[in-house]
Amino acid sequence: MSGLSYQGSGVDVGAAERFVSAIEPLVRSTHGAGMVDHPSRFAGLIRPELAGLVEPVIAATCDGVGTKTLLAREPADFQGLGIDLVAMSVNDLLPLRARPLLFLDYLATSRLDPQRLEAAVRGIALGCRAAHCALVGGETAEMPGMYEEGRIELVGFAVGIVDAGDLPDPTPMARGDVVLGLPSTGLHANGFSLARAALFDRAGLHLDTVVAELGGALGSALLTPTAIYVDEVLELMDVVTVKAAAHVTGGGLAGRARALVGDALGIRLNPASFRRPPILDLIQASGDVEEAEMAATFNMGLGFLAVVAPGDATPAVALGWLPVGEVTAYGGQVDLGHG
Amino acid sequence: MSGLSYQGSGVDVGAAERFVSAIEPLVRSTHGAGMVDHPSRFAGLIRPELAGLVEPVIAATCDGVGTKTLLAREPADFQGLGIDLVAMSVNDLLPLRARPLLFLDYLATSRLDPQRLEAAVRGIALGCRAAHCALVGGETAEMPGMYEEGRIELVGFAVGIVDAGDLPDPTPMARGDVVLGLPSTGLHANGFSLARAALFDRAGLHLDTVVAELGGALGSALLTPTAIYVDEVLELMDVVTVKAAAHVTGGGLAGRARALVGDALGIRLNPASFRRPPILDLIQASGDVEEAEMAATFNMGLGFLAVVAPGDATPAVALGWLPVGEVTAYGGQVDLGHG
Repeated sequence: MSGLSYQGSGVDVGAAERFVSAIEPLVRSTHGAGMVDHPSRFAGLIRPELAGLVEPVIAATCDGVGTKTLLAREPADFQGLGIDLVAMSVNDLLPLRARPLLFLDYLATSRLDPQRLEAAVRGIALGCRAAHCALVGGETAEMPGMYEEGRIELVGFAVGIVDAGDLPDPTPMARGDVVLGLPSTGLHANGFSLARAALFDRAGLHLDTVVAELGGALGSALLTPTAIYVDEVLELMDVVTVKAAAHVTGGGLAGRARALVGDALGIRLNPASFRRPPILDLIQASGDVEEAEMAATFNMGLGFLAVVAPGDATPAVALGWLPVGEVTAYGGQVDLGHG
Repeated sequence: MSGLSYQGSGVDVGAAERFVSAIEPLVRSTHGAGMVDHPSRFAGLIRPELAGLVEPVIAATCDGVGTKTLLAREPADFQGLGIDLVAMSVNDLLPLRARPLLFLDYLATSRLDPQRLEAAVRGIALGCRAAHCALVGGETAEMPGMYEEGRIELVGFAVGIVDAGDLPDPTPMARGDVVLGLPSTGLHANGFSLARAALFDRAGLHLDTVVAELGGALGSALLTPTAIYVDEVLELMDVVTVKAAAHVTGGGLAGRARALVGDALGIRLNPASFRRPPILDLIQASGDVEEAEMAATFNMGLGFLAVVAPGDATPAVALGWLPVGEVTAYGGQVDLGHG
């Protein structure tokens, strides 16, 4: 019986090193002028642009893609999840008007799968470029015995910078303010437990089931990557005063809309003002899901919300934002216009 | 057959909310003067102390605790893993002389286990206080079907700040420079796949096996939390010029020592100058592991290394650092003094 080695204990160090070499050009493709090179590779270093900031505040977020990852099979699916991963974290910086600066990823699996992992990093790099942030580092962990076979966990961290004086101030929000929205691309990365239960367990559909209303396979519709809203939101905030904003994620459109206006005010959305993705109707019909449950789980077609004074609605609409509703005097009430 | 709801699809929203309430005081215990409160809870906000910094550089790291988590059973174990999690990320900031500013955690499991998760967050808060950084946010994900039963994944993310002019500069490193070290507390969070293969698979030991040389149960020795070196390293760097430094993690003492001095120089360590944790001997004997494999996997008793000029060794030793070796002219050679 020979002596044990690290290699023999289930961790393939060589494969790990080849993977790191393969993703290096992807990582570099996200690097701009602020990157700082240092021979110690322990941490990612970046020089933030602080010129013009009176009181720089650092904003930090982290998130995963949830059980959406359970649906991914092909490398192309994991590339999409990489985009989702960046979107989930950088979109959360935007309600604070924080400009994305850097991103780190953590990928983990029970057995290193270079093809799928490289595809995920490719998607992360695409997402970082869309968000104008640098992928400054990350960790890829092979953990036998941790994950169920074939699963890959993806966790993302984003850091942004905002001037303290630029932080949105919800204090003057008032009845009659306009709620603006940006369309979602589909489910984004929330509500997948319910979606799977309805579509697969209840209705017996499969990822490969072609659904006419979806224009293709169910899997493609479910795995459509989350929209990255960095350009649209920061542009809006440069042009008008945004009183409050929300990335529509956990809690669904109803939960996020309610949190957006606080306890003293209410919100009324006009469902005719935005498109409900067809996948939602399929989930609802398949699982016999009540409308309130749908709205408390899914984004319902709106991925990002912002509240502006009535006079600021016109320039916002000129930038492509949808006027989707208004702030009401009915404290705590969310009226999504259904029933 | 009733309609599906999010609750019914395997995600317990109420339990999640109770967990968030329970950890709030722990999170707050890490908050200092720089915290910025904003009604939008999407991102953690912190105002970095930039006074006196000519050219602030942001350093960012992320890491998990690897397969060490597979050994944790009791809440107390998870509290230790929380400390590990902070240590793995903040110690990686230190070779850059970056002062830890903020930390975020991502905890995920197949089924929410509030007791263990709360213990993990308690450990994270303890670690953050030791590292003088604020726990500004995090994500706890319940993902049925993702993790093997009972597993909890922990991922950490740290951000620090350093003045560009304070970044350690390895250029003047030369033969005869002194290598300083800080003792590890045990395995820290590396090499657990090999440790488990040797101790459990080969030798048939169990976590509860009492081992006289370890002064107690094997599980306690294995799960001892990683040391947090923030105070010791930043103090050293305030007092003397550190040319290069390394947190001893993946690649073990041999790998990290080699990377520390680069290709042009070598390094020789004196094994009599630091204590080898008894757990290492047990692993080596149990798995019949070659010494070179041990040194390429484990920290061997040194958790952190720093290189200083010979004249700076005395003040460093006065601060409690161990003089553990020297830089040699033998490029690429690492001599750990064994055989």
